[in-house]
Amino acid sequence: MSGPIRLALIGMGKIAHDQHVPAIAADADIVLTATVSRNGEGVAGVAHFRDIDDLIASGLEIDAVALCTPPQVRRAIAARAIAQGWHVFLEKPPGATLAEVAQLSAAADAAGISLFASWHSRYAPGVEPARAFLADAEIRSVTVTWREDIRVWHPGQGWILEAGGFGVFDPGINALSIVTRILPRPFFITDAELDFPSNCAAPIAARLRFADDLGLAISADFDFRQEGPQSWDIVVETDRGTLTLHDGGARLVLPDGSEPSHSAALHGEYSGLYRRFAEIVHARTSDVDIAPLRHVADAFLRGERLTVEPFIE
Amino acid sequence: MSGPIRLALIGMGKIAHDQHVPAIAADADIVLTATVSRNGEGVAGVAHFRDIDDLIASGLEIDAVALCTPPQVRRAIAARAIAQGWHVFLEKPPGATLAEVAQLSAAADAAGISLFASWHSRYAPGVEPARAFLADAEIRSVTVTWREDIRVWHPGQGWILEAGGFGVFDPGINALSIVTRILPRPFFITDAELDFPSNCAAPIAARLRFADDLGLAISADFDFRQEGPQSWDIVVETDRGTLTLHDGGARLVLPDGSEPSHSAALHGEYSGLYRRFAEIVHARTSDVDIAPLRHVADAFLRGERLTVEPFIE
Repeated sequence: MSGPIRLALIGMGKIAHDQHVPAIAADADIVLTATVSRNGEGVAGVAHFRDIDDLIASGLEIDAVALCTPPQVRRAIAARAIAQGWHVFLEKPPGATLAEVAQLSAAADAAGISLFASWHSRYAPGVEPARAFLADAEIRSVTVTWREDIRVWHPGQGWILEAGGFGVFDPGINALSIVTRILPRPFFITDAELDFPSNCAAPIAARLRFADDLGLAISADFDFRQEGPQSWDIVVETDRGTLTLHDGGARLVLPDGSEPSHSAALHGEYSGLYRRFAEIVHARTSDVDIAPLRHVADAFLRGERLTVEPFIE
Repeated sequence: MSGPIRLALIGMGKIAHDQHVPAIAADADIVLTATVSRNGEGVAGVAHFRDIDDLIASGLEIDAVALCTPPQVRRAIAARAIAQGWHVFLEKPPGATLAEVAQLSAAADAAGISLFASWHSRYAPGVEPARAFLADAEIRSVTVTWREDIRVWHPGQGWILEAGGFGVFDPGINALSIVTRILPRPFFITDAELDFPSNCAAPIAARLRFADDLGLAISADFDFRQEGPQSWDIVVETDRGTLTLHDGGARLVLPDGSEPSHSAALHGEYSGLYRRFAEIVHARTSDVDIAPLRHVADAFLRGERLTVEPFIE
């Protein structure tokens, strides 16, 4: 590919407008060539289509698509794009099931195109310095607290509490994408409790315990019912003191009180994602790490289900 | 390894006594050297230990272990065995979570030992001839009916309806292990309904729909409450007529009414499993196909949960 990557953005909801459009606009290597959405708004001066079939029928030349639709409908669109020979950027989570992601990955490999299972929180500025610090530390415990108000952050996103929407794991998977990146060893769920509102098919809160082969205790507290102060914190106790990632990975505080800056801080998570996507497209490779989604599936598989009061938005 | 494989059988419940002990006794390449169980009975003339720590402390020379414990406790025992340099045969399902199986697999590779995620139903006599027939057919639909009486087949196995016991997916995963073997293309869950008794953490029934990239419709009906005639059937409609696997894969009826025999029929599922285990141990490879377990995790992740009447054994 010689010129910039001609990208169609599919699913023009909040995340597309708030994050993808500005990140693409700031990236010299990627040009927004089309938007696709049944209900969402397009972008001034950019061709807009109702669905991917209309985009294909238009004959517009496209190199890649970024999918921001709810996960329940993402697979079919991704499969259509791969069949066109387009590279595919998947918002998180990369699918509604692990099997469909495995199949997209195999299809992308067979077609020789790049598939990117993006995890935006891994591009928060505190994440890479935290990973570097923890590589040399003896880790004693990890405590994740991810408590936010669904009414504030997800207005009108009813799909989140429907089957396949993952409920509180929609934000919680961001925490898991960070923890799987910063810890030096893999880990697995040992216990989980999931709170299902009596009128919802997805959990509104979850408490998880993980371990690794050396017995490290990792706990996570996810809750969608948090009013007042919000928490997106990861606290790691080590032999060298306490490391804390605040604000979803945006702010890192090391045991000596220092707050290392990081080049990613200059750009923002989605600029980092699009840099990575351009990199794998040019290298003709894929980047599909299913570990965060696998932990979510394991939580549903392994967990106790508790019924809690109905949720009324 | 020159002599026969010296094997310790861990978890001496129903499946160990009914299937593993006779299959091992009939296999010249494997010798039952120890049994390990906290509550279950041993085998006359074979050393017995209370747990894997006692087995290790005994200094008895062991090459491999077969784990028949409930899945909730399997990982820790497997990790201990791998650390001893012992090859590991895992009863189905290979673990309580996908992450722990991935980690055991990585540990086995690092230690240079063989890990076998066994799926006994794949060694039922009808399975390989069904696979061969379907490789050349145009498949139009697949209907799985797996309905059995939990009280008849799983007496005293309370762990099945506890968290991590998988409920009706404990038998249902056998059906999935066959379907993933006989169909020529991978598939994924599109819809699932899971029935949870109000007093159980695992489902007692499930209805699943799958599709593949070409739109093939696959449905599965799993139920643990089946009284009277039991069903373990897979019906495949093709352009060449209807293929039916009865009795959990034991009996295959082809469209022309013929019932092909197969060499495996001379042995039985567990003899086939131990032949395969000996093969991978001698070849120093592993055989860990997580596809059936991944479909189960996806069903929990993607499915609607319905509450049904309590189950009293």
